[in-house]
Amino acid sequence: MSLVYADLSVSADGYSTGYEQREEAPFGDGFDENVIHGWMFEHGENHRAEIDAIVAAKAYIMGRNMFGPVRAEWTRDWRGWWGEDPPYHAPVFVLTHHPREPVPMDGGTTFTFVTDGVESAFARARAAAGTGDIAIAGGAETLNQFLAAGLVDVLRLHVVPVTLGLSRRTDVVRLFDGVPPLQLETTQVRATPEVTHITYRVR
Amino acid sequence: MSLVYADLSVSADGYSTGYEQREEAPFGDGFDENVIHGWMFEHGENHRAEIDAIVAAKAYIMGRNMFGPVRAEWTRDWRGWWGEDPPYHAPVFVLTHHPREPVPMDGGTTFTFVTDGVESAFARARAAAGTGDIAIAGGAETLNQFLAAGLVDVLRLHVVPVTLGLSRRTDVVRLFDGVPPLQLETTQVRATPEVTHITYRVR
Repeated sequence: MSLVYADLSVSADGYSTGYEQREEAPFGDGFDENVIHGWMFEHGENHRAEIDAIVAAKAYIMGRNMFGPVRAEWTRDWRGWWGEDPPYHAPVFVLTHHPREPVPMDGGTTFTFVTDGVESAFARARAAAGTGDIAIAGGAETLNQFLAAGLVDVLRLHVVPVTLGLSRRTDVVRLFDGVPPLQLETTQVRATPEVTHITYRVR
Repeated sequence: MSLVYADLSVSADGYSTGYEQREEAPFGDGFDENVIHGWMFEHGENHRAEIDAIVAAKAYIMGRNMFGPVRAEWTRDWRGWWGEDPPYHAPVFVLTHHPREPVPMDGGTTFTFVTDGVESAFARARAAAGTGDIAIAGGAETLNQFLAAGLVDVLRLHVVPVTLGLSRRTDVVRLFDGVPPLQLETTQVRATPEVTHITYRVR
């Protein structure tokens, strides 16, 4: 059965980025990017199964802030953070308010820009994935939209043993912000020093 | 070495209660109390080690909302939620703004009411515990105060696979609200269908 997965690396207090994301600080100010994503970038060999699972989908949806820094919205040469051969190897639908022609990359990844909302992106990803799985690649704001719409089947959280302490900032979106109550089923947990991987089935 | 433990049962989005706590709804409206605490009340036999650990300290500190419903502040016959033989079997210091004489219970539990703040409660618990451990029993608001003060050594979260979806309410305190960033070390994780037990050492 084709499923909709979502992956997010978060702090123990539910943040996946700091604040004021920009090109020089893609994960935002307030802390080093590797605080939340270091398990993947610096200790990937310890997390091969989880990383393989993240890039196993046949179509992806991501938010505009995950695709690139805000400033790059108007720099048409921005091609994502992942170099010429991104790890997705599949169509990636980027939610944005700014129309742009699709950007084909090496290895099967194509970034397609969707300006007419979550449902449209989902329909396009569904069509592109065929019988394969879809993955919501992040960030938190995009994931929250899909959770609120009831479109996520499997939520994989990668919980880093740190808190960011941003509860008094209103400019940072936290996982589950604005999402109605969810009933989850814990289907897998793997603890490591860098991160605890928790897989929830959304009921 | 004597340590300061803290235990909190929380939803996956960090809530330990609903809203508008009162005598008829001690964990607040918005959901059934057993959503968050059912693992302990209904499935205790599956979590014996964790429950034993919660009640192993030699002195406890708890918030006023955990001791009793707000209305009972002025009803001097309120003796806690736990019957005549509470599970603590040790001194329990209750943070409150309302002075009251200590309430001795069966089995070694005495509820002592502390009106001069977190540091005072901590000093009294320290003296009462001797060489034993102290535990912050909750709720979230009290735990946040002790985390912010840097007084917690070991944080044991009991994460229930549900979200409460209360991010738009400003009258509900969430775990880590107002607490500066923390560096944690994951020392133990045990997943069960009802709850995932995660132990962090606070660094």
